[in-house]
Amino acid sequence: MGEAGAGQRRGRAAQREARAQRTAGLGRPYILRNIPTYDILGEDNLVRIEQAADRILAEVGVEFRDDPASLELWRRAGALLDGVRVRFEPGMLREILKTAPPSFTQHARNPERSVEIGGKSVVFSPAYGSPFVMDLDHGRRYGTLEDFQNFIKLAQSSPWLHHSGGTICEPVDTPVNKRHLDMVLSHIRYSDRGFMGSVTAESRAEDSIEMARILFGPEFTDANCVILGNVNVNSPLVWDGTMTKALRAYARANQAGVVVPFILGGAMGPVTNAGAIAQSLAETMAGCALTQLERPGAPVIFGNFLSSMSLRSGSPTFGTPEPAIGSMVIGQLARRLNLPLRCSGNFTTSKLPDAQAMNEGTMSMLAAVHCGANFILHSAGFLDGLLSMSYEKFVLDTDFCGALHSYLDGVVIDDNQLAVEAFKEVGPGAHFFGSAHTMANYQTAFWDSELADNDPFEKWELAGSADAAKRANALWKKRLAEYQAPPLDPAKDEALTDFVARRKAAAPDAWY
Amino acid sequence: MGEAGAGQRRGRAAQREARAQRTAGLGRPYILRNIPTYDILGEDNLVRIEQAADRILAEVGVEFRDDPASLELWRRAGALLDGVRVRFEPGMLREILKTAPPSFTQHARNPERSVEIGGKSVVFSPAYGSPFVMDLDHGRRYGTLEDFQNFIKLAQSSPWLHHSGGTICEPVDTPVNKRHLDMVLSHIRYSDRGFMGSVTAESRAEDSIEMARILFGPEFTDANCVILGNVNVNSPLVWDGTMTKALRAYARANQAGVVVPFILGGAMGPVTNAGAIAQSLAETMAGCALTQLERPGAPVIFGNFLSSMSLRSGSPTFGTPEPAIGSMVIGQLARRLNLPLRCSGNFTTSKLPDAQAMNEGTMSMLAAVHCGANFILHSAGFLDGLLSMSYEKFVLDTDFCGALHSYLDGVVIDDNQLAVEAFKEVGPGAHFFGSAHTMANYQTAFWDSELADNDPFEKWELAGSADAAKRANALWKKRLAEYQAPPLDPAKDEALTDFVARRKAAAPDAWY
Repeated sequence: MGEAGAGQRRGRAAQREARAQRTAGLGRPYILRNIPTYDILGEDNLVRIEQAADRILAEVGVEFRDDPASLELWRRAGALLDGVRVRFEPGMLREILKTAPPSFTQHARNPERSVEIGGKSVVFSPAYGSPFVMDLDHGRRYGTLEDFQNFIKLAQSSPWLHHSGGTICEPVDTPVNKRHLDMVLSHIRYSDRGFMGSVTAESRAEDSIEMARILFGPEFTDANCVILGNVNVNSPLVWDGTMTKALRAYARANQAGVVVPFILGGAMGPVTNAGAIAQSLAETMAGCALTQLERPGAPVIFGNFLSSMSLRSGSPTFGTPEPAIGSMVIGQLARRLNLPLRCSGNFTTSKLPDAQAMNEGTMSMLAAVHCGANFILHSAGFLDGLLSMSYEKFVLDTDFCGALHSYLDGVVIDDNQLAVEAFKEVGPGAHFFGSAHTMANYQTAFWDSELADNDPFEKWELAGSADAAKRANALWKKRLAEYQAPPLDPAKDEALTDFVARRKAAAPDAWY
Repeated sequence: MGEAGAGQRRGRAAQREARAQRTAGLGRPYILRNIPTYDILGEDNLVRIEQAADRILAEVGVEFRDDPASLELWRRAGALLDGVRVRFEPGMLREILKTAPPSFTQHARNPERSVEIGGKSVVFSPAYGSPFVMDLDHGRRYGTLEDFQNFIKLAQSSPWLHHSGGTICEPVDTPVNKRHLDMVLSHIRYSDRGFMGSVTAESRAEDSIEMARILFGPEFTDANCVILGNVNVNSPLVWDGTMTKALRAYARANQAGVVVPFILGGAMGPVTNAGAIAQSLAETMAGCALTQLERPGAPVIFGNFLSSMSLRSGSPTFGTPEPAIGSMVIGQLARRLNLPLRCSGNFTTSKLPDAQAMNEGTMSMLAAVHCGANFILHSAGFLDGLLSMSYEKFVLDTDFCGALHSYLDGVVIDDNQLAVEAFKEVGPGAHFFGSAHTMANYQTAFWDSELADNDPFEKWELAGSADAAKRANALWKKRLAEYQAPPLDPAKDEALTDFVARRKAAAPDAWY
């Protein structure tokens, strides 16, 4: 574990900058962590996990289904093929992964919002993939394109997120084969931050990348990361062709794939944490290595998604202790591979923005922060076991993301912060309220939540005894009402609109 | 940061034992952590903080008011006295503290409930000191002796707490000068775990200790810790005589004082985190050292309580990021002194058991767990900025304490847990539900919350769409209804009852 002191000068500057930017309504583009990662295993045990992953890869192997081009890449790289089953000699994938960059920049259309992914950087992105949306007024229903755009606007309005995300919710009122066009266009129009494209078909991945090319120019796009694609392993140990084709499309265009097993312990993986971690390592290494065969040097993110299940009901559980612990180990393994990490997020099975939601969410989000995740995809919005995006939870979570900015700034140790002279000024038994040291430092001292109620009980009661969910309900409405779209070059908007129209006209709507 | 692997054999055994005890309705007596502490500062910065504390102690000093005996102890130890102001040469307190034990056992009247305090041990104890209680049915009101006893019963009923605590709430329906007798008797009657005595006057501390002597025998009590007393510094840099006299009474009887500054940054300490940490170190070292002058070798706990304030309103804030970070540093400093640590707890300013309550509580409770706290006093119940004990929050928090048992067990790395053979059995694309490995391991695999709702949305909706607070409301009532007092030797009960009656008769009631 490293020493945080070296980064403290930067930490202090970052605090000041954060305060300045907050006043101006802007957040930092991303966080540079000033606290070390929380490393919970030693070398011996990490090696044991790596050896288990190597044995899984060599003795069981991974299936690459419905994608002969992937099989051909593996064959040429020296893997052992048996039909669609691919086996790997120990060490082979690690060797291939050496061409992947340890850190890269994802450019945003507003250069001030470009993010670094890797090293000490931490990027918060909205949650991804729910079919449903929820709010306190109307309960749960299927997401629409309007909801999708609302969440982009809420994300863009928050100084505590750094990224616009991808499929924040499924816009089920748009045709399945065309909604990626509406989603990418919405990200570009309503946010000036980085975003993610489609992966649900190779052609949709290529459409997404093509829209990024229109926005950033084809040469810039070929030389720089401007869009991410999040692909899932069909755990255990299966890569479906839809995913590998999309993954290769992003790599081919020099764009970053995010490679993510979804292991529900006891179902898609063993019920023991160590085994699920070894499996995750094996599956992710295989996916990441495939990008390097497609295009050596293409950026790729080592992703992970552990969860547990209720042994009474068989239901998935989230925000529980075992995946939190597992995330810390995954972080150590990713750093040993020298790859940027996506891990964990703000997870819960609660159906309301209540005590359970924030207990589980805080547990899993802190695991993401502690494990050294560079790109935290599901930072805000999830309820209902990842099936619903909640408007209230979204603003509760973004507020918590704000607290995590201060948390990741750590503690600065210098003469001003140590304040010995202030003790001489104030002396025993007196208070520091009006002291010169307090006056000089109070503006940057403490995180100040927009949603927490810190008032005395009587004042809170007089104001209507609202709970946090009710305050969140008022806040997201205020944010949407005040939202203003960031300026977009009209020529680019027109070119994108034209592209979308042409692509939509090229095929009939499909709803499945 | 240490390697956790060495403790994994113990961790695995502990997991099995935990499952066995859970089935039997008992928890582990305490936790032996199997994950390392989260150390965020390096040697250089820790030394800078220690040097700042030394300068505060030498150049500003600490006042010991209304306790000439404490001043005399300091004078004899070689401190510099100027009226009630005491100044300490750098290193002097560290030298005195060398006689304090790094770890000790607090004996419970049920020997199976005795706890180790120090080293890798973690002990969860209920929150302490609120004048008010709350529940969803009746809102906020002053605490009574019945409430006090109810919380003891709820604590005793939970397998996830390890200690009965002290002044769980103030029983304001009993006379101020006699309530300590009712409180200690209630702890002894309704719980068989360790407990804390009074500190609000030297005579009340001595009454509390005398009751412990009746319970454990005078010789055993003189040789072993059987009661704790929690004393607060009147920060900044003032020790009131009431506190030092109580602290010395506990030390004189070889019982453990818990020495705790309460520093609200910007009020009772500097607004900068590093300064508040240095102050806390100075104040706690002075208090702990005083116990060693009173009786060298007496057990003592290095305590801490950092909090921040809202810079908009001046209200105290809890569960915020800066105190969480500060706790991690305090943990490192306590270990360098080789003293058992009490730090942080489950804090929030929320007035309801809602999203804010569990977000803030989880943040601060995880800080307590990560920083290596051995005795976590405020583990369950607080709402309302520590002013209220909530029945619902209490059971939400004890459930979370259960999750923290699994969290602190860490991850076990062995052949069974790594499950390589299970992958060979199941193979790619199949599921692990009925596999031999799952069958052999599922019983100890995952934390299973009693309060979290993991059901699918439709099932949850059909069951009445309850939020976590409502479920908690039902649970605490069920627990109280099912509560059974642990057996107590009738002779001891009679002797204690007699002692209490005599002490009550010895003075008129006082209500202030």
